[in-house]
Amino acid sequence: MLRHLVTIDDLSEFEIQAIFSLADEYLAQMATPDKPHRIRGRNPIAQDFVLATLFYEASTRTRFSFESAMLRLGGQVLSSADPKTTSAAKGETLADTIRVVENYADLVVIRHPCEGAVRVAADYADIPVINAGDGGHEHPTQTLCDLYTLQREKGALRNLNVVLWGDLKHGRTVHSLVYGLARFGARIIPLPAEGLGLPEHVCRRLLRDYDCVPLSKRDLGDFTSHDEFPVDVVYVTPDKPHQRSLFTNVQGEESDLLGVHLPQNAFARIDACYVTRLQKERMPNVAAAEAYPIVNREFLKNPMLKKSSVMHPLPRVSEMGYDIDDDERAVYFKQASYGVPVRMALIAALLNLKSGLLQPVHPRKKHAVYEQRTVACENPQCVTAQESERRYLTPRFWIVVEDEHLVLRCAYCEHEFVPGVMARTSTKKFMPNALDHDPPPADLVLFPDEAAALAAGFQPYKYKTRL
Amino acid sequence: MLRHLVTIDDLSEFEIQAIFSLADEYLAQMATPDKPHRIRGRNPIAQDFVLATLFYEASTRTRFSFESAMLRLGGQVLSSADPKTTSAAKGETLADTIRVVENYADLVVIRHPCEGAVRVAADYADIPVINAGDGGHEHPTQTLCDLYTLQREKGALRNLNVVLWGDLKHGRTVHSLVYGLARFGARIIPLPAEGLGLPEHVCRRLLRDYDCVPLSKRDLGDFTSHDEFPVDVVYVTPDKPHQRSLFTNVQGEESDLLGVHLPQNAFARIDACYVTRLQKERMPNVAAAEAYPIVNREFLKNPMLKKSSVMHPLPRVSEMGYDIDDDERAVYFKQASYGVPVRMALIAALLNLKSGLLQPVHPRKKHAVYEQRTVACENPQCVTAQESERRYLTPRFWIVVEDEHLVLRCAYCEHEFVPGVMARTSTKKFMPNALDHDPPPADLVLFPDEAAALAAGFQPYKYKTRL
Amino acid sequence: MLRHLVTIDDLSEFEIQAIFSLADEYLAQMATPDKPHRIRGRNPIAQDFVLATLFYEASTRTRFSFESAMLRLGGQVLSSADPKTTSAAKGETLADTIRVVENYADLVVIRHPCEGAVRVAADYADIPVINAGDGGHEHPTQTLCDLYTLQREKGALRNLNVVLWGDLKHGRTVHSLVYGLARFGARIIPLPAEGLGLPEHVCRRLLRDYDCVPLSKRDLGDFTSHDEFPVDVVYVTPDKPHQRSLFTNVQGEESDLLGVHLPQNAFARIDACYVTRLQKERMPNVAAAEAYPIVNREFLKNPMLKKSSVMHPLPRVSEMGYDIDDDERAVYFKQASYGVPVRMALIAALLNLKSGLLQPVHPRKKHAVYEQRTVACENPQCVTAQESERRYLTPRFWIVVEDEHLVLRCAYCEHEFVPGVMARTSTKKFMPNALDHDPPPADLVLFPDEAAALAAGFQPYKYKTRL
Repeated sequence: MLRHLVTIDDLSEFEIQAIFSLADEYLAQMATPDKPHRIRGRNPIAQDFVLATLFYEASTRTRFSFESAMLRLGGQVLSSADPKTTSAAKGETLADTIRVVENYADLVVIRHPCEGAVRVAADYADIPVINAGDGGHEHPTQTLCDLYTLQREKGALRNLNVVLWGDLKHGRTVHSLVYGLARFGARIIPLPAEGLGLPEHVCRRLLRDYDCVPLSKRDLGDFTSHDEFPVDVVYVTPDKPHQRSLFTNVQGEESDLLGVHLPQNAFARIDACYVTRLQKERMPNVAAAEAYPIVNREFLKNPMLKKSSVMHPLPRVSEMGYDIDDDERAVYFKQASYGVPVRMALIAALLNLKSGLLQPVHPRKKHAVYEQRTVACENPQCVTAQESERRYLTPRFWIVVEDEHLVLRCAYCEHEFVPGVMARTSTKKFMPNALDHDPPPADLVLFPDEAAALAAGFQPYKYKTRL
Repeated sequence: MLRHLVTIDDLSEFEIQAIFSLADEYLAQMATPDKPHRIRGRNPIAQDFVLATLFYEASTRTRFSFESAMLRLGGQVLSSADPKTTSAAKGETLADTIRVVENYADLVVIRHPCEGAVRVAADYADIPVINAGDGGHEHPTQTLCDLYTLQREKGALRNLNVVLWGDLKHGRTVHSLVYGLARFGARIIPLPAEGLGLPEHVCRRLLRDYDCVPLSKRDLGDFTSHDEFPVDVVYVTPDKPHQRSLFTNVQGEESDLLGVHLPQNAFARIDACYVTRLQKERMPNVAAAEAYPIVNREFLKNPMLKKSSVMHPLPRVSEMGYDIDDDERAVYFKQASYGVPVRMALIAALLNLKSGLLQPVHPRKKHAVYEQRTVACENPQCVTAQESERRYLTPRFWIVVEDEHLVLRCAYCEHEFVPGVMARTSTKKFMPNALDHDPPPADLVLFPDEAAALAAGFQPYKYKTRL
Repeated sequence: MLRHLVTIDDLSEFEIQAIFSLADEYLAQMATPDKPHRIRGRNPIAQDFVLATLFYEASTRTRFSFESAMLRLGGQVLSSADPKTTSAAKGETLADTIRVVENYADLVVIRHPCEGAVRVAADYADIPVINAGDGGHEHPTQTLCDLYTLQREKGALRNLNVVLWGDLKHGRTVHSLVYGLARFGARIIPLPAEGLGLPEHVCRRLLRDYDCVPLSKRDLGDFTSHDEFPVDVVYVTPDKPHQRSLFTNVQGEESDLLGVHLPQNAFARIDACYVTRLQKERMPNVAAAEAYPIVNREFLKNPMLKKSSVMHPLPRVSEMGYDIDDDERAVYFKQASYGVPVRMALIAALLNLKSGLLQPVHPRKKHAVYEQRTVACENPQCVTAQESERRYLTPRFWIVVEDEHLVLRCAYCEHEFVPGVMARTSTKKFMPNALDHDPPPADLVLFPDEAAALAAGFQPYKYKTRL
């Protein structure tokens, strides 16, 4: 049984809960009473194993967290900390590197600047691979730590009100967390700085892939009247998945909100406030940046935040004051601390040191696969766009059917884009990618635009209906 | 009981001796007969512990020495060797870094380019922090190794004649050693290259804080007549501390030299010669640099040096020849070797693996504290002068009373400077910092100059006596 | 008993076989049935030992291979991965570095950009030193892995037909392998890209030092008629060493080829094809570079290659296709994998964890030593040409007697060159280095040219015979 963790979707909810339970066990056994969040000592169940860290981008904190987890399990570590000292500098591809390193270690942790890079490594590896951050794509163990912190501090995730604060546009940390919160039924309350809201593709995916329901001002009532919390929308996950087609007639009545049953005073308190780095140089509006409130002692006086945990993936810059470090609601250092038990449990699971934690294969959502070279991923940061990796990589996409057209999602970087033209090889005809084709025909070919289709010898189809 | 080692003054003489005794024990148990100075094998008493090295400045040697010590104790290591791969590159502050890393390790060793940086880390840490060099400030474990080498090779430290050779101006190594020698009663014989003598503040501190007595040519007699050793002064430590006020009437008579009882022929031999790197580009006088004698086989023929240990913190450049490497007086590689048992003992002490080595709190000399933002440390290399750290650090100074004025010593980098103006908040008056105020008034305020005092709304006091 | 591995010649054939047998044992005990080439788990016989890696040049792969080997033996590791973080940056010499590090570790692995650098380290060390690559000189553990792979995959080395493919001019890997193949009696079939053949000094050394016999087209018959394998020469090693003087009359008759007895169909198949990186920018003829065949699925259809192992030291660039990765003849990842058991066995041997593997001293070929400063090594990459190391290093050469003149081989980088002038101190006469002097006179002095000899006060000798 070989399993990887490249995106948070690689783990089922059941598996995530199993990992959290094991992390709880480690803390119960190993933490001291005065620091119940911190692993001390060793539980040497991995003495015969070696973990390798391959960091093509610097991160002392994340690397230490993984290495500490492995050492606390009694295992050993091979460490590559510096992008410039790797064999990639000699032009070695990821596929080759991983097939060499798998002979030296039992488990590999990779950080890489290219989006989707760790998926490539996992595809070629015969040992477990963990993604410690691949460009702007994913950082799933950070998400595990975030969710674990919430569960640990709050008891459970379902129906928690979690504010996301600051820069919600950039940063894989927040996007992965959003999906994770949706999966576990926490309510997502975005409070972005001006111009730094959740990207449209993240919102779309929340609705499409995670069955979220967006509650607007009409649904939220009093909750949006706070000056400090100018809430536009809250994403909630119904207890039971609903049909996507019901989306259009959201009415906002509490009682029949697509299976969402909000208790009275559902939004009377904020359970957690997840703060992210606000990089002023990235903000389009400097005045708004200056005006954006800093999370500090003054800010936390708001009664809504009385029991709100303040989280932060760190490092902070100026968006969060040092004057709350001693406040018991400030849990960001605990959050870093929980990285150790969570990663210990993950390592134990992937190395099969504990049975029953993971299933042989995790049943991810099924989409049709598109593997023809007629289109290329449009994300310039994608691993498939790198010259060295293109030598051997075949582009691979999932065909995601939306109401209006077919969307391609890169199987590596998960970037989504809409090819301009669809065609069939049987008829050699093409037409705009503009209609509903569910499921797509077996001989489907996609092109970025008409010119590409014509160049490939296809002809326009005159009736703009189904091909 | 939480203890750090940031400056050599953080350990009492008793504690240093206890660490040396434990180092002796380790050597007795672990060294082989043919290399009695070298640790081999393991003494696995730290198996449940993890040491992290955070080196913001490169030093393979020092890092290896610490890591080897930890491994020989059976412990494990997290290693960060490269300044550019640390989270500091993302703007993380020391206070945040240490509060993250303390969750991953049981003990942290830090090297940092900013003076006082490791004190900041220690202030925020809840695990022991060891300074492995903070800019030009301190490198206390080097000093421990130096002292241990002297004691090991010579049997004891008291009344040893130790020549300090070369560049005594720059370099934390020599300054810390000077204070250490004073504390253990070795006699300090500075023999600097031209223009590279001990800084005045070091000499002043020797007298003021370590109760040293400077013996001049008149006191030394024949000893200063050697051409090779143009001795100007020797610092000796009386058997019993004396009053500072007696300083002015040093007469040089052997019998009543402030409690110093020099035996006949006290300076008949040099017990050790501590050589330091002579960086010619730093020397003001190139001709003098060329003329400065190299410590080599020829040099060691001097009868005064017949039994003199030759020490060097390494790396050497051209100030010491390779032709003495096989001479049994050359102990610099042994000196490096002793780094392992000394650091093992230190780690064992700080991790409480051996009880009774350290006291709960080490009683450092008491000075009044000054913590107002009216003055800033004048050392541009001080950690408090760095923009990132200023976000949360409050300046802190010790008020050191000298005969003529109040001196501020930065509690971080220990740089001393004299603020130009002193004032009292009760009277809103200020006057020059020029008189004896012992103890300082409770409502004392200090300013760098009159302009600053005036700007803060204070008025000049017309009588230039006590405020 | 202290032994190093700086060049592959530091080990006798017997010792290499002993190391391979131990590697076999480790694989038998530790590999899983599905991956019989890969070490898993631990065999903790080195628990009391520490290995230090000092990599002055980056190589994650090689470093991980050594560190994994040490961890699989239960030992510990000190790791220095980055050239810029070493004390060499402060101007420390190799001799000093190794004498410091030997106090911290039990075994040192060094990679260094200067040729001969690791020999210097070994000369000064009192612990075993392993060369992990010193510039263009040697990388002996790579050669051990290459030979072990061949033996493991093919059962034995003697009489194997091994094609060397690609860039045979640059690259220590191929040169060391050539000598290793000769020593174990494999037949060497160079198939270089245009302009990238084996350097003349390597060919000369094959004949002179390893007793090889070159078979030309006349000897090889049908074998050279393949279009795909334009074979010019094959180097074979006779079963019994022969006299060098017989070389001139090679006739090519199978029966009396200097003791070489070639069976019928000796060249009916290629046993292994050793591919090397083809760096097109280094090739003088661009068209030839483009035309050079890529080792891919198509190429491997050649019937001669039906059972040929395809080896590669990795990383590959474009000389070898990804389409053969699943072919069972592709053994390059296994080759990387074998690095672990081979290095485990080597470490066990050098640390004396297994007795009887190594002899107290390996009897290398004896040559007269020349240690006078009248000549300097002509290789600008030689460690003796580096300013820092020249401070203490004495040049040292082996006098290798060739038919026409005396050749000096640098004892560090093994670069060979012919000094222009030879002289005798007894007569103060010199003459061109042009005649046979076997053995060289005891008072021999060599100069690069006449000017140097004249400048040293020597006079020309008028009779151009023996001095």
